[in-house]
Amino acid sequence: MTAIDFAAFVDELATLAGETILPFFRTHIGAEDKSRGGVFDPVTEADRAAEAAMRRRIGEAFPAHGVIGEEYGSDRPDADYVWVLDPIDGTKSFISGLPLWGTLIGLMHKGRPVYGMMAQPFTRERFYGDGAAASWRGYPARGSDMSSTRVLRVRECACLAEATIMTTSPMLFAEAEREAYRRVEEKTRLLRYGGDCYAYCMLASGFIDVIVEAGLKPHDIVALTPIIEGAGGIVTTWEGSDAAKGGRIIAAGDRRVYDEAIRLLA
Amino acid sequence: MTAIDFAAFVDELATLAGETILPFFRTHIGAEDKSRGGVFDPVTEADRAAEAAMRRRIGEAFPAHGVIGEEYGSDRPDADYVWVLDPIDGTKSFISGLPLWGTLIGLMHKGRPVYGMMAQPFTRERFYGDGAAASWRGYPARGSDMSSTRVLRVRECACLAEATIMTTSPMLFAEAEREAYRRVEEKTRLLRYGGDCYAYCMLASGFIDVIVEAGLKPHDIVALTPIIEGAGGIVTTWEGSDAAKGGRIIAAGDRRVYDEAIRLLA
Repeated sequence: MTAIDFAAFVDELATLAGETILPFFRTHIGAEDKSRGGVFDPVTEADRAAEAAMRRRIGEAFPAHGVIGEEYGSDRPDADYVWVLDPIDGTKSFISGLPLWGTLIGLMHKGRPVYGMMAQPFTRERFYGDGAAASWRGYPARGSDMSSTRVLRVRECACLAEATIMTTSPMLFAEAEREAYRRVEEKTRLLRYGGDCYAYCMLASGFIDVIVEAGLKPHDIVALTPIIEGAGGIVTTWEGSDAAKGGRIIAAGDRRVYDEAIRLLA
Repeated sequence: MTAIDFAAFVDELATLAGETILPFFRTHIGAEDKSRGGVFDPVTEADRAAEAAMRRRIGEAFPAHGVIGEEYGSDRPDADYVWVLDPIDGTKSFISGLPLWGTLIGLMHKGRPVYGMMAQPFTRERFYGDGAAASWRGYPARGSDMSSTRVLRVRECACLAEATIMTTSPMLFAEAEREAYRRVEEKTRLLRYGGDCYAYCMLASGFIDVIVEAGLKPHDIVALTPIIEGAGGIVTTWEGSDAAKGGRIIAAGDRRVYDEAIRLLA
């Protein structure tokens, strides 16, 4: 069974998550603060309900598979196939009404991300890839079959001086990390903050050239890795190792930009 | 003739602009740099084509009206009725593929903003108001009449410590302004960068509590003023005067947050 066989099932999970989450978006349901006096880290009922729904469906369809989720932790994390779920990546955008959050659904096989999807139910978009190819699909109308599909491809960019950079927020870096990040940022041509998972999808789509972040969890990046790589991009830790464990992450569309940024981050 | 009579005409302009702009969004058409060695300030063909189309339509329907546009300057700015247009507010979001830009269409009567719309054709949303009320309309499908409408209302917020703040970028402030802005930002609970016109609409929708910006042009704020005020919010300069001329702008949903922020900005 190859990774691509899971595509229809991932679509089913994304639909399930979207139907669960969307009624909560732009409603005035209070967000709970799950951090203990630290950074404001809201989590909605939607987040939990969507993860529970996806886990239930995975358990029915693939009882031997493992699941790692943002909300409900790990089940069988040592299984051959492990699903990595973040129902609402970008909860701060979500509670601010901004459509830049997304549902992340990743599949790992023996520790390697083999399929991933970012689904945005408000804009009705899905970005997905298997490491070899990546695509975008838009749904013009609810319940309509008239979806349109595009191949995703990163763009060429010769150097940071010609690059657009994104990071979710400079506040999310520890101080030494922020200095390293600033060395990259100050070389670039255009800067956009915010974005979370949406930024990585714009990199895969060829509109953003480099993303530098820190403190990511596996569920923040596993689903995005096969999309970025499938679109011809690179995603690793700042040290150049496997991104799947999270931590300090760099993604770039063009290896020249990646190499230049990695040197500045070191 | 009251401002509300123009609502259907503004919808027509927004449709014209959206149909002109949308084919350029997320395509790899190069953005031109119109600044002279300064801040990167891209402008697309879409921006110009949409403004030209709207100006043409206004000229046909209301030849005595004035028009002030981001791209093509002022015609009859001293007329009783003056249209204030920004076809793509948020060009940096636009060229980065992010759906946070919007078409701003404002109408002034004897120097006072009396009607405004922010239209986002990719997410198929329109936010509009006349200073007394404001609404949101979503279009589920292209060509469908199944639109849904909601009344927009700011939310209560007792103080900055409970507030979500947005600003397009801290880099857009001059140094003294940035210090003033930081005094406000550091009191708030949650911070989101980016957003441009979309941020003001989220304030009118009750998801953002305060926005602080500087260097705005009339076309950045005139269309948004009747939406913010119609939803019960406040928008002025940092000195508390009329926002319609642009400059250093603060918007807030709750007067308590506005008063606290104004003191810190002074």
